[in-house]
Amino acid sequence: MSKAVVLLSGGIDSTVCLADAVNRFNGPENVIALTLFYGQKHAKELESAKAVAGYFGVQHVIKNLADVFEFDNNPLLAKSTEAVPEGDYATQQRESNGMVKTYVPFRNGLFLSYATAIAYSLGASWVVYGAHADDAAGNAYPDCSVAFYTALSQAVYEGTGHKVQLFAPLISSFKKGIVKKGLELGAPFHLTWSCYNGTEKACGKCGTCIDRKKAFEANGVKDPIEYAE
Amino acid sequence: MSKAVVLLSGGIDSTVCLADAVNRFNGPENVIALTLFYGQKHAKELESAKAVAGYFGVQHVIKNLADVFEFDNNPLLAKSTEAVPEGDYATQQRESNGMVKTYVPFRNGLFLSYATAIAYSLGASWVVYGAHADDAAGNAYPDCSVAFYTALSQAVYEGTGHKVQLFAPLISSFKKGIVKKGLELGAPFHLTWSCYNGTEKACGKCGTCIDRKKAFEANGVKDPIEYAE
Repeated sequence: MSKAVVLLSGGIDSTVCLADAVNRFNGPENVIALTLFYGQKHAKELESAKAVAGYFGVQHVIKNLADVFEFDNNPLLAKSTEAVPEGDYATQQRESNGMVKTYVPFRNGLFLSYATAIAYSLGASWVVYGAHADDAAGNAYPDCSVAFYTALSQAVYEGTGHKVQLFAPLISSFKKGIVKKGLELGAPFHLTWSCYNGTEKACGKCGTCIDRKKAFEANGVKDPIEYAE
Repeated sequence: MSKAVVLLSGGIDSTVCLADAVNRFNGPENVIALTLFYGQKHAKELESAKAVAGYFGVQHVIKNLADVFEFDNNPLLAKSTEAVPEGDYATQQRESNGMVKTYVPFRNGLFLSYATAIAYSLGASWVVYGAHADDAAGNAYPDCSVAFYTALSQAVYEGTGHKVQLFAPLISSFKKGIVKKGLELGAPFHLTWSCYNGTEKACGKCGTCIDRKKAFEANGVKDPIEYAE
């Protein structure tokens, strides 16, 4: 029976990936959730990831990679002097001419490589992650693009002697479709956290809050988490 | 002026890469050496890396990634219950039918991704590493192959929004040519360490010792380090 390592941030995309993997790989015993902390402004995502992994009953590996961003000042990092930008991604992109400020240097490349090493050690043939079409649009997050995914998939396959492969089940999906899929799979959206800020309730104003709210609305369903406004 | 991050293990390949980069990028101020500790059996490589970086006067970043191999029992790891195999790689490969036991799961993929994140943060456009043709032969180390390098190069370029590229100047060279190049560049081979064992003198019996000794002999030069035998 093949096994999978699923990158789990605690947001809705990775939670849907985990729900999908538990189905696809025939039960939680064949799935390992991997959460990588990278020095975010808050630990809310980490708490959500723990709750989601617990909900599905999968093994949960948590590692700290914050050290890699010693030289970075990304607004998502706790040590950053910059505030998390407000407004939707499209507006942010018009201002930045492409990549958004919340792009964390090659984070997905690093996380997927880390997951590949863990997968190989644990005898898992698949590494699953929740990149999707919205994040890649206009190259907002270039490490979510199909071009990146295709190339890294090949690198993982070659670099492990054909033992491990990547799988991004949401790569062609938009947020609306991801929420729809999650609702069908019974994903525990009430346990997830998407907001870039670590406030008690989600801010509702950052790029990821705006995307999330719209996606639930488009499905005619109330988002089960609470917002500040 | 473009800058480069060079992966530096403290062995002869990465030392030649560093010597080459200091030339190619017009001085030590444009080069950052990056050494990643991954839980090896000994710290001899790390000490050599420090000495080599100091020799060239480049900034030296040292990080610890040992945690990623929590689930692994590779003979190169300090926590491993397995001994480092003796004999040349070709013999080991006949026994293992391809990949050698000292392949550390996707280590190069992880190290290069880590280096890419650091390069992006420091404004360096290049990540240099010392993969070479001997290590890739017969897929002994699949993460040294041209197929892996080509794919990961593409992933790095795409995943950083075309800001960072990989460069493997030795990818088509064999050990003999690498030693030759190092001699021409004045690489400080006397400061390097290649042996997989952490004994006072190099063992002379592991795959990497055998390769190294042959390469110096083929150049008609005495290896400046001492061997136990």
